[in-house]
Amino acid sequence: MSENRIIIEGSGRHIHVSQDVLEALFGKGYELEVKKYLSQPGEFATNSRVDVTGPRGTIKGVTILGPCRPATQVELSYTDARIVGLACPLRESGNLAGSAACTLTGPVGSVDLPEGAIIAKRHIHLIPEDAEKFGVVDKQIVKVKTEGDRAIIFDEVVCRVSPKYASYMHIDYDEMNAAGLSGETTGQVIA
Amino acid sequence: MSENRIIIEGSGRHIHVSQDVLEALFGKGYELEVKKYLSQPGEFATNSRVDVTGPRGTIKGVTILGPCRPATQVELSYTDARIVGLACPLRESGNLAGSAACTLTGPVGSVDLPEGAIIAKRHIHLIPEDAEKFGVVDKQIVKVKTEGDRAIIFDEVVCRVSPKYASYMHIDYDEMNAAGLSGETTGQVIA
Repeated sequence: MSENRIIIEGSGRHIHVSQDVLEALFGKGYELEVKKYLSQPGEFATNSRVDVTGPRGTIKGVTILGPCRPATQVELSYTDARIVGLACPLRESGNLAGSAACTLTGPVGSVDLPEGAIIAKRHIHLIPEDAEKFGVVDKQIVKVKTEGDRAIIFDEVVCRVSPKYASYMHIDYDEMNAAGLSGETTGQVIA
Repeated sequence: MSENRIIIEGSGRHIHVSQDVLEALFGKGYELEVKKYLSQPGEFATNSRVDVTGPRGTIKGVTILGPCRPATQVELSYTDARIVGLACPLRESGNLAGSAACTLTGPVGSVDLPEGAIIAKRHIHLIPEDAEKFGVVDKQIVKVKTEGDRAIIFDEVVCRVSPKYASYMHIDYDEMNAAGLSGETTGQVIA
C-alpha cells in the first residue's frame, strides 16, 4: 500500500463468548458455525445471535463471532451503550477488568455477566512486514487520516502487531459515521 | 478563550418546521412554546415532538426546535438515517434541494416532505470578534482538535460568521461518540 495506507473496516456490535457461556445460552454441546470468515485469520461471523440487556433496555439479535475465547466480551458503540444504559469503558480487546455488567439472553437461557461489556478502542492490526514499512511498533499510538466531506484525523489509534493478523484498521459505526465512511475504505497512517 | 478554543455542543436529532407544516401536524393555530433556550440567540427547544418515518422504519418523538422557519428541515445522524432507511445527504443547514424525503406524523396529522432530511455538516457559529481572533472568515473550512482517549481532529468544519450568533461548534452524536465526548467540552480551532 502506498502512502502508508490501511484498509478501514467498520465493526458492528458483536459478542465473543466462552464455550461455557455459549452452552448456557444455546444448550449443552452447542457449537458455533461459520457464516462468513472475517479479515482476521480464523475469525468468523456466525448466525448465532443473542439479546444484550442493560438497566435501560435491550438490543436484540447481536451477532456472536467465533471461535470461542477464554472470556466473554461484548463490544458495543457509545450509541448502543446509551440505548441499553451501560457505562461501558473504552478498552482494548481482552482488557475486561471492571468493565460493564450486562445480561445475555439466548434461546435456551440467560447469563448475567459481572463484567465484559466495552467500547472497543480503535486499533490497527498489522503484520510485522507492514509495521516495519509504516515505521511503527506494537502498542504504538498513531493517527489515521481519512478523506471526503467528513474527513477526520483519528488520533489515539493503537497498533497491534502480530504475524497472526492481517493488516486492517478497525473502528466502530459511531466512528465510521462521524467520518462519513461506508463500505471498504482506506486511511493514511501517520506515525 | 485561549488557544483558539471553541465550546463543542452535541446536537441530537431535531426538526425545524414551517408554520404551515406545524399546523398540519398539531392543528390550526398551534404555536411552539419555549421549553429551553439553546446557545444560539432566539433558538429554543420545545415540548412538541413528532415521528419521523422513512422506508425502513420510524423514529418516534423527535423534538421540534423553534422558532418556525421558512422551510421544514429534519436533521438526523447517519445512525438515525440508517434506522429509518433514508439516504440523507450531508448538508449545511438550509441547503435542502434534493435532500431526502420523509414523513412527519404529529397528533393531528401527517405531512409527506418531498425533501428536507439531511445530515448536518459540522460547523462553528462565530461572532465576528471571535472569527477575527481565530483568524477565520465566513465559509472557511478549518480543523478542530479534541483531547482524551478518543482524541480526534475534525477536518471539514465550516465556519459561519454572524453578529447574530453565539460562538459554538455543533456536531451530531455520531461525532460526539466517535470523539468520546459528552457534556460540555471544547476543542482547538486550527485555521
